[in-house]
Amino acid sequence: MIANTPPMGWNSWDCYGAAVTEDTVRKNAEYMARYLKPYGWEYVVVDIQWARPNAVDHSYEPFSELAMDEYGRLTPAINRFPSAKNGAGFRPLADYVHSLGLKFGIHIMRGLPRAAAHRRLPIADSPYFCHIAADPSSVCMWNPDMYGLRCDLPDARAYYDSIFRLYASWGVDFVKCDDIAREYPRCRREIEVISEACRSCGREIVLSLSPGPAPLEQAEHLKTYANMWRITDDFWDDWKLLKGMFERAEKWCIHAAPGHWPDADMLPLGALRQCENPDDWTRFTPAEQRTMMTLWCMMRSPLMIGGEMTKNDDFTLSLLTNRDVLDIVRESWCAHPLRTTDAESVWIAPRQDGDGFYLALFNLDDRKRTVSAALPEGLKAEITELWSGKRLRGGNAVRMALSPHDAAVCRVRTI
Amino acid sequence: MIANTPPMGWNSWDCYGAAVTEDTVRKNAEYMARYLKPYGWEYVVVDIQWARPNAVDHSYEPFSELAMDEYGRLTPAINRFPSAKNGAGFRPLADYVHSLGLKFGIHIMRGLPRAAAHRRLPIADSPYFCHIAADPSSVCMWNPDMYGLRCDLPDARAYYDSIFRLYASWGVDFVKCDDIAREYPRCRREIEVISEACRSCGREIVLSLSPGPAPLEQAEHLKTYANMWRITDDFWDDWKLLKGMFERAEKWCIHAAPGHWPDADMLPLGALRQCENPDDWTRFTPAEQRTMMTLWCMMRSPLMIGGEMTKNDDFTLSLLTNRDVLDIVRESWCAHPLRTTDAESVWIAPRQDGDGFYLALFNLDDRKRTVSAALPEGLKAEITELWSGKRLRGGNAVRMALSPHDAAVCRVRTI
Amino acid sequence: MIANTPPMGWNSWDCYGAAVTEDTVRKNAEYMARYLKPYGWEYVVVDIQWARPNAVDHSYEPFSELAMDEYGRLTPAINRFPSAKNGAGFRPLADYVHSLGLKFGIHIMRGLPRAAAHRRLPIADSPYFCHIAADPSSVCMWNPDMYGLRCDLPDARAYYDSIFRLYASWGVDFVKCDDIAREYPRCRREIEVISEACRSCGREIVLSLSPGPAPLEQAEHLKTYANMWRITDDFWDDWKLLKGMFERAEKWCIHAAPGHWPDADMLPLGALRQCENPDDWTRFTPAEQRTMMTLWCMMRSPLMIGGEMTKNDDFTLSLLTNRDVLDIVRESWCAHPLRTTDAESVWIAPRQDGDGFYLALFNLDDRKRTVSAALPEGLKAEITELWSGKRLRGGNAVRMALSPHDAAVCRVRTI
Amino acid sequence: MIANTPPMGWNSWDCYGAAVTEDTVRKNAEYMARYLKPYGWEYVVVDIQWARPNAVDHSYEPFSELAMDEYGRLTPAINRFPSAKNGAGFRPLADYVHSLGLKFGIHIMRGLPRAAAHRRLPIADSPYFCHIAADPSSVCMWNPDMYGLRCDLPDARAYYDSIFRLYASWGVDFVKCDDIAREYPRCRREIEVISEACRSCGREIVLSLSPGPAPLEQAEHLKTYANMWRITDDFWDDWKLLKGMFERAEKWCIHAAPGHWPDADMLPLGALRQCENPDDWTRFTPAEQRTMMTLWCMMRSPLMIGGEMTKNDDFTLSLLTNRDVLDIVRESWCAHPLRTTDAESVWIAPRQDGDGFYLALFNLDDRKRTVSAALPEGLKAEITELWSGKRLRGGNAVRMALSPHDAAVCRVRTI
Repeated sequence: MIANTPPMGWNSWDCYGAAVTEDTVRKNAEYMARYLKPYGWEYVVVDIQWARPNAVDHSYEPFSELAMDEYGRLTPAINRFPSAKNGAGFRPLADYVHSLGLKFGIHIMRGLPRAAAHRRLPIADSPYFCHIAADPSSVCMWNPDMYGLRCDLPDARAYYDSIFRLYASWGVDFVKCDDIAREYPRCRREIEVISEACRSCGREIVLSLSPGPAPLEQAEHLKTYANMWRITDDFWDDWKLLKGMFERAEKWCIHAAPGHWPDADMLPLGALRQCENPDDWTRFTPAEQRTMMTLWCMMRSPLMIGGEMTKNDDFTLSLLTNRDVLDIVRESWCAHPLRTTDAESVWIAPRQDGDGFYLALFNLDDRKRTVSAALPEGLKAEITELWSGKRLRGGNAVRMALSPHDAAVCRVRTI
Repeated sequence: MIANTPPMGWNSWDCYGAAVTEDTVRKNAEYMARYLKPYGWEYVVVDIQWARPNAVDHSYEPFSELAMDEYGRLTPAINRFPSAKNGAGFRPLADYVHSLGLKFGIHIMRGLPRAAAHRRLPIADSPYFCHIAADPSSVCMWNPDMYGLRCDLPDARAYYDSIFRLYASWGVDFVKCDDIAREYPRCRREIEVISEACRSCGREIVLSLSPGPAPLEQAEHLKTYANMWRITDDFWDDWKLLKGMFERAEKWCIHAAPGHWPDADMLPLGALRQCENPDDWTRFTPAEQRTMMTLWCMMRSPLMIGGEMTKNDDFTLSLLTNRDVLDIVRESWCAHPLRTTDAESVWIAPRQDGDGFYLALFNLDDRKRTVSAALPEGLKAEITELWSGKRLRGGNAVRMALSPHDAAVCRVRTI
Repeated sequence: MIANTPPMGWNSWDCYGAAVTEDTVRKNAEYMARYLKPYGWEYVVVDIQWARPNAVDHSYEPFSELAMDEYGRLTPAINRFPSAKNGAGFRPLADYVHSLGLKFGIHIMRGLPRAAAHRRLPIADSPYFCHIAADPSSVCMWNPDMYGLRCDLPDARAYYDSIFRLYASWGVDFVKCDDIAREYPRCRREIEVISEACRSCGREIVLSLSPGPAPLEQAEHLKTYANMWRITDDFWDDWKLLKGMFERAEKWCIHAAPGHWPDADMLPLGALRQCENPDDWTRFTPAEQRTMMTLWCMMRSPLMIGGEMTKNDDFTLSLLTNRDVLDIVRESWCAHPLRTTDAESVWIAPRQDGDGFYLALFNLDDRKRTVSAALPEGLKAEITELWSGKRLRGGNAVRMALSPHDAAVCRVRTI
Repeated sequence: MIANTPPMGWNSWDCYGAAVTEDTVRKNAEYMARYLKPYGWEYVVVDIQWARPNAVDHSYEPFSELAMDEYGRLTPAINRFPSAKNGAGFRPLADYVHSLGLKFGIHIMRGLPRAAAHRRLPIADSPYFCHIAADPSSVCMWNPDMYGLRCDLPDARAYYDSIFRLYASWGVDFVKCDDIAREYPRCRREIEVISEACRSCGREIVLSLSPGPAPLEQAEHLKTYANMWRITDDFWDDWKLLKGMFERAEKWCIHAAPGHWPDADMLPLGALRQCENPDDWTRFTPAEQRTMMTLWCMMRSPLMIGGEMTKNDDFTLSLLTNRDVLDIVRESWCAHPLRTTDAESVWIAPRQDGDGFYLALFNLDDRKRTVSAALPEGLKAEITELWSGKRLRGGNAVRMALSPHDAAVCRVRTI
């Protein structure tokens, strides 16, 4: 099954915005293959605007010239992705990523390029046309490139089929589709058409929907048509956003299961915003980074690294290579938030194999705080805190003195 | 003062949709000059899509080719408006309408043509460009032609100045601006910029905003920046819509005054929808037509005839040439709805000159009904019903037996 | 017709709260008869809690002992209204007020005394009982005395009939019914039952509903069943409340007509809150008092003086005896707010006799401001400002330099 | 810890409404002790109106005479609970229930009797009074007996202390407090005061809050102050209500943990509504009853039998004595709804001891349906359906053909 556990990988947005290049992607893929692959990290994802030659930062440009083929399908900007020359598309880059034992992903916006509609381009391998498929009133509020499609017409399905066939031929393993996850009810049918095109393209491709917040009441629809979907708007290295994730995690955690994962967004760790400032670094404290990693693992969110990985320091790397913690995301299930107040949160998650459970304690307060959680009555257990590796004494409860915004997570094994 | 009383005229939408032609406009202007001008009718307005060569009915076409000049200003489609050839625009047609002693108006959509933005055309008499002025996320939900403008930029004002200067040079007296009156708060600033461009173009042009419902809480903004604005979505010959107008009229009537008029939309009288069916005729009964004319006059709505006037029958013409009734719209003020229930409505409106007042009685019920209204205590008056011309006996009250959906309106003069 | 013009009078609440006494009522009635009656003032109204012996200020007391008869009808507390002894009720006081050429009113809460329900008292002249008529879940949120009635039962109508018959026998001319005007939809039926009891009691009694804000969408129901109803919560001598009245006046003014008047609440003028502090005085500036009087007259609100009248100073008295201004409330109609912004407001109101109209200009700003209003084109008129009595020059417009929060009102007569 | 697992017992409401008697309670307690105690059933709860002598069915009576002591504390109506004579209260009945090895519970309304406030009774062991503690505007919308308390005053805490001390002296083990669980935000503080009185009364008493729906956003408050709280309005034997519980169960299940349990309400099984009709029987089909029992167990709702147990037939008894199914409510945790659509639902719940998990399959459709659920990849397991006791074949998924509205629940053990 595709996405049997939450996808783990890297995405170019947090560090390069709209301006990532092939060279950068290759270097990060190489880093991942060398340092992270043994821990389960595998996807390398090129985010938004890879078809725009003149992108330099996190911003967009109205009415810019995007690279596309004669069927209105965007293609990589050659100046940024040289291997895409001669119509090769992302195939050479995907091949390289695959050669490292990793998987390759790209970002798309729902819809087709506005210019393709105004130029009345034909849709590949079909009798249909872009200017019929495009819905002139379906535009993105924050990006000027595309028109959404008229999903009641066969032209729309033909267009989505045409791009997913192309991506499959390139060797794409992961598609992050944007301007769609929170666009209910307007895009409900468009999600279905995209999902059907993805599943019938002849290659297993993980379908990820952005941006959030996806509406909770659409959980069953999302579970049916997507492998992951964003539960918040863009997440960045800001404590308020991290603290706010606890409430959303609590609501969404029951919808995490093999094949479909609520997504808390990329992990803004290490070197960020490189296109704006090469010296930029995550504003999260080490404690906050532990809290983020712990929550994402406990709720079984997909894990996509947002930083320029080649600049990782030891601490950042240690977060990404703690096998015991990463096991949570793969081997637990049925996570259960015991309580979440303004000051603290406690989660438990049984292991699927029945060999004990995980207990996470979070200090959401701005000062030191001892957070505790009762253990099942009569339990005799061996308890290990997984960030520190320390063995704790058993008893009726686990109690941890935590720094502001810090977290601890324990493996509890019956003895 | 411009629009000192509610504008009266004809508009091509109800009978020709997006497809009116110069020949039709001329014939209707000639009819108006001959039969209606003595009663105060004066505006002849060409409605939507006059720049689109292939329009045939009330529908729109995505990504169609619109006639425009090198500055992204729409121009009349020559095949439909032959006198516009050689860059003359609407000047020759306006001249002809003026020669009949009438005034000439046109429809516009807010914004600039999408093609002008994608082609990056310059804005006339300015250093600015269409692709900067255009806001790629500001699109109309029901018409595919335009992008709204980024009204925080000087480019936007330059574009609107450029079109109003052009219209002034053509001799336009009335502009109906569409996709804007109900688009608060998004288009609040755009209304202001359009209004300023209109007022500084060098010619007195009535500014009319569509479609409704404009939000009641924006009444003061509308009164400041427009001469008339729609208070409902498109009005057609359907009793439910007409009955529903009473509630809106009640809320909006206090905002009618010289220079600014809440607009109940065109009068769907006589021959309608000619592009779809040349035999089409209003579905309103004669009683309903009296009710509509009476309500529009009492609330002092602008009066714009929607039918193909050259096909008017005697009854239709009689509605448009009852001088005593039409006097209400010009000579009353401070209309006051005495009561409006599901079954009936009663309105009074004093005359500005103090010479008595008007009293309108409406039967909103589906069966015959006697509607009555008390007269001021002790009043001695001469009372004339204006549709029939009949003198009524005075007394404490006026009582009228009315057919279903019918209306009566009395002039009451103290004696 | 009852309440053919907006009722004018005095009410004890603003100056004596729940604690007014017979002596005070008599003195104020005598003052009114002597100084105000010639100007149209006529109602003398005893406000809330006249049945409670120990009331001393504006507050209420849970589970207090109220005076009542054996049928659960409240009676005046003898210690406060000595003439009510021997079961005379308000008859002697009403007789005295009538002897001065004035009219007498009282306050009631909807419902019946809770104690009457718990004691299972019978309802007068009926086979019914208070504990069946009372709805135990229908209580007032701010006063502890009563239960609302189960208006689907005949017991409820019997109770309301029993009290209105009693009031009629006392000579009551005006009933202010409280805890009801804003209690839609819960009290919709209760309003109808009270109104029917009032109208069939054998005496003409003005029915006034409190407190506001009554819901605007219930205007027709209120017009049918009440003579006046409050459009705001309690109004006091606070500029913010006065400024806020302009918006409500604008919405409600179209519903003012003979027999039914939207009520802007008492006029907090002169000596207020006497039970708390005998030296207390209105916090309104003279300018604000002019604004209040002008707005109330233009919108044709009932005028009920709230102050202890015997302490009126010359200025206060002058406000209450300006015959030209008070004529507005009786002789205008169809008031029409020309505009209301954050800084100013302008209203016009024609005279019913056609002899010109009134034009009121309000400075809502906190600094001096010149407020102007265009006059009908071509008008030749004689214009008099009614507070100052000064003749203004005619022209195209009236322009007045006004102090902060001040108002001017002109009579405009065609010449 | 009190309520370490979801409380299980019997409540008199579904079968006897407001009219249960001591004799009936004793017989049901005896039945429970004999047939159900071995399966974990233990609470015997007397529901609403035990202080009202003349109760005969499910209805209430305004202004009825309730039995109470001189401190305004309700006492059992002697005619219905003879052992309560001589001021013994529920002590003798509680003693009897305890003698059977069971626990005893009662219902209360928040607040104090209205009559106690109107009579100004003192509060036991305190200097305070009922008429001060009572809030005259805090009344229940569906029951006429009580006033809520003014929880900002010490009088309120004194009253609640006085009743919980009395209940503790009677030997009460369980209090169902009514008119409170959905009364946020008005009763937020009242919940806290009641909870504090309950916890400091000197006896362990389970605190249960009714009626629902309690607001989900108050989950942490409820978890802190109550042991169980209703998540819906009254639940009865109606498929629509049962189907609707799935959505609520999904939202609330994450809040079930030792000490605090979201409560799906009584189980309307067997003989119901006995006071109205001794032949009445649950309208749920056997399939629906299985579905109810399965869902309540999987979500770990408290289990309170609603029927007259002495009339149980074999099928009803079999539902209440399936030890394997009842183990779910005690031995699972972290229940997780895999999916819930209009047609089906699937839940899993791990066992706390790690020895496998439970998998429940529900057919919510009105016709036969095969419901399936994937098993973790590679799992080798022994699978037993617990209602039938049948062993299933393992594999990648569990598939069950289910009758309309029926359920199956499997224990899955790794081998």
